[in-house]
Amino acid sequence: MIPVHAGVGKNLKNAVEGNIMKIVVPGFFFTGLSGGIKKDGKKDMGLMYSEVPAVAAGVFTRNWVKAAPVLLTKKRIQKGYIQAVLVNSGCANACTGKKGIDNAKRLSAETARILKISPDLIAVSSTGVIGEFLPVNKMSTQLPGLCHDLAQEKLEDFAQAIMTTDTVTKTAFRKKIIAGKKIIIGGVAKGAGMINPSLATMLVFMVTNAAVLPRTLQFLLDEGVKRSLNRITIDGDTSTNDTVLLLANGRADNPPFSKKSGATAGFKAMLFEILAELAQKIVQDGEGATKLIEIKVKKAKSTEEAEIIARSIAHSPLVKTAFYGEEVNWGRIIAAAGKTIFPISFEKADLFIGKIALVRKGVNVASHYEKQAQKIVTERSFTVTLVLNQGTREASILTTDLSPDYVTINAGYKS
Amino acid sequence: MIPVHAGVGKNLKNAVEGNIMKIVVPGFFFTGLSGGIKKDGKKDMGLMYSEVPAVAAGVFTRNWVKAAPVLLTKKRIQKGYIQAVLVNSGCANACTGKKGIDNAKRLSAETARILKISPDLIAVSSTGVIGEFLPVNKMSTQLPGLCHDLAQEKLEDFAQAIMTTDTVTKTAFRKKIIAGKKIIIGGVAKGAGMINPSLATMLVFMVTNAAVLPRTLQFLLDEGVKRSLNRITIDGDTSTNDTVLLLANGRADNPPFSKKSGATAGFKAMLFEILAELAQKIVQDGEGATKLIEIKVKKAKSTEEAEIIARSIAHSPLVKTAFYGEEVNWGRIIAAAGKTIFPISFEKADLFIGKIALVRKGVNVASHYEKQAQKIVTERSFTVTLVLNQGTREASILTTDLSPDYVTINAGYKS
Repeated sequence: MIPVHAGVGKNLKNAVEGNIMKIVVPGFFFTGLSGGIKKDGKKDMGLMYSEVPAVAAGVFTRNWVKAAPVLLTKKRIQKGYIQAVLVNSGCANACTGKKGIDNAKRLSAETARILKISPDLIAVSSTGVIGEFLPVNKMSTQLPGLCHDLAQEKLEDFAQAIMTTDTVTKTAFRKKIIAGKKIIIGGVAKGAGMINPSLATMLVFMVTNAAVLPRTLQFLLDEGVKRSLNRITIDGDTSTNDTVLLLANGRADNPPFSKKSGATAGFKAMLFEILAELAQKIVQDGEGATKLIEIKVKKAKSTEEAEIIARSIAHSPLVKTAFYGEEVNWGRIIAAAGKTIFPISFEKADLFIGKIALVRKGVNVASHYEKQAQKIVTERSFTVTLVLNQGTREASILTTDLSPDYVTINAGYKS
Repeated sequence: MIPVHAGVGKNLKNAVEGNIMKIVVPGFFFTGLSGGIKKDGKKDMGLMYSEVPAVAAGVFTRNWVKAAPVLLTKKRIQKGYIQAVLVNSGCANACTGKKGIDNAKRLSAETARILKISPDLIAVSSTGVIGEFLPVNKMSTQLPGLCHDLAQEKLEDFAQAIMTTDTVTKTAFRKKIIAGKKIIIGGVAKGAGMINPSLATMLVFMVTNAAVLPRTLQFLLDEGVKRSLNRITIDGDTSTNDTVLLLANGRADNPPFSKKSGATAGFKAMLFEILAELAQKIVQDGEGATKLIEIKVKKAKSTEEAEIIARSIAHSPLVKTAFYGEEVNWGRIIAAAGKTIFPISFEKADLFIGKIALVRKGVNVASHYEKQAQKIVTERSFTVTLVLNQGTREASILTTDLSPDYVTINAGYKS
């Protein structure tokens, strides 16, 4: 363990504990400022710092084209510890080749020097325009100020600094006494925003004062992400920069959570709640979204079958535009369900919107409940449930409607 | 062979041959009229008739949920011969169970009685609202008139009768002397239109006076569809009703085209041209489309890899909205290419818009040709070429941009 260095971050003071409005996780410090990457002068550089090297777990984009910061951070996290995370918005540093890697290394080396820690303990993350180089000289001049401004209660500034076309900051916070220790997890995310011309990128950073064994931390993160962030979709596109990091600094002095310890269940529950909350906040703030829709597929032959069918419905532009138009358009839902590699039998299927049946065993019953169903689709949030009646497994996907605003935002109208 | 019956279709007269404006294929008769299925009074019932049973080949939706007319026609075409095709728009007769099948059978039986042919020789096809029953009584009263109005030069009426939100009729026509015989193929299609609340359905009907062996006809149709209609995408959705039929009546008196005969190459070329033309016309008339874009992926490890990567780019809402916004947004193209199961190396890739290089071996060169590239994306039609440099195979997909109109059309605004 590398010792805490005095003098780094003059604002490194403990914020009032128990103040849920300000998310504070003991031993973690945050900040964000405007470094001039974004043209509109909004915050675009963020720093997160742990007073000790933290056990770290990460999940990264599965896109074959990975941005420079993703490649560098994936490598560094393999050692199991991270102490600081340097993030910028406004430029993705993706498709930038060796120069992109060099730029990410240079910025993390300079940050490491100021924080007096090893560069290998710095994770980097970027979101924004693809194919452009980071303005490293400009950013470099901001690094001393960024390190100096670190404070426990400044997660909101950090959250602002990672936004692109997100309309609100997205944070989540849980605390719970587990085996006599107060365990806290805080998380921050950015979602379906973009700076033209770029991709929607999902960035999620979580910190906890719990002590967790490295393998357990990665295992829990993998499991949690599968059930939350990997179960949301706005447009089916996958960014070159998607990054989820979880840092655990052990300040709670609990016996480290391991796969075998019973107390781990409590931590796991908190973590999954945070992930679910951030996932929902990302979808709710989806570009142009007017509705949050959960697509549940039940009684499938396998979880994979359920998930792929749910995803097919959730990605269908015809389903999503119908939701935008507030139409009970069950034919589109069935057709989207039927187009995957997994066979379905419409004759066996039940379909519900909210609790209202539209189809029962392949028979259209929608006409009996037209008014009730019509009322549900006018709501801000509702569930669609397709019961295949061909197995016992299920899955759900959170999605949005597709509005003309999605198109105009992404056509660069608002940029 | 069932003999031609006199008295059926008093307008069954040979139209002037060689008049390309009116598509005439010897021995085939068409018509279309308004049967009151569509609320706006537009044509919604069409009939196509061959004076002799024609060798028939078909390709149908791969959606697991298949409409009643698809199930019935798939079964009937197995015998190898079809003599008439009864089509309606305004109601898809999909997700309608046994009653849907019974309705399709009843309408084809009544048509068969009037035409004095076997019901097994009647193919049926529907497009429109899913989950609603055909207004069979109303349609039934129109059948005598429909059969009576058949004429060689009325393909345009038939083309109108199968339209939903298509804005233009789509027909194609080729003639060529092959081995001393005048061979003619005519085709008609409907595409990315829909009647709310429904699915975009692709219907394509082609007729030829050539004599073709049944297995050869099906083989050529399968091959041709793979290269044309299966290589277009508007929104990635797959209808419950997609149907492609090709009828060959042998009136040209050529020795039947077989897989072994050299003359078949000429027929194949004509057929593939017709399919390509209809495919292009379907995409051009895509809902809300303002641009026609060909996505080519070259130097891939396999044709499948090339096609799936091309399809990923062609389906990406972020790529399509950028095209609508007339932006040279190559990062989105690369990111969409990288999100499939097939690995790509950005470091090896070249990317072109028209003939303008945006990326060469993973290096951004777009800035050198910004004006030229910007000019291309303002055009009505252009090509995007991604050269992976990791193999020798290639594929291309035709697609459209994604406009706010697509959303408003499908949200039911215009219904």
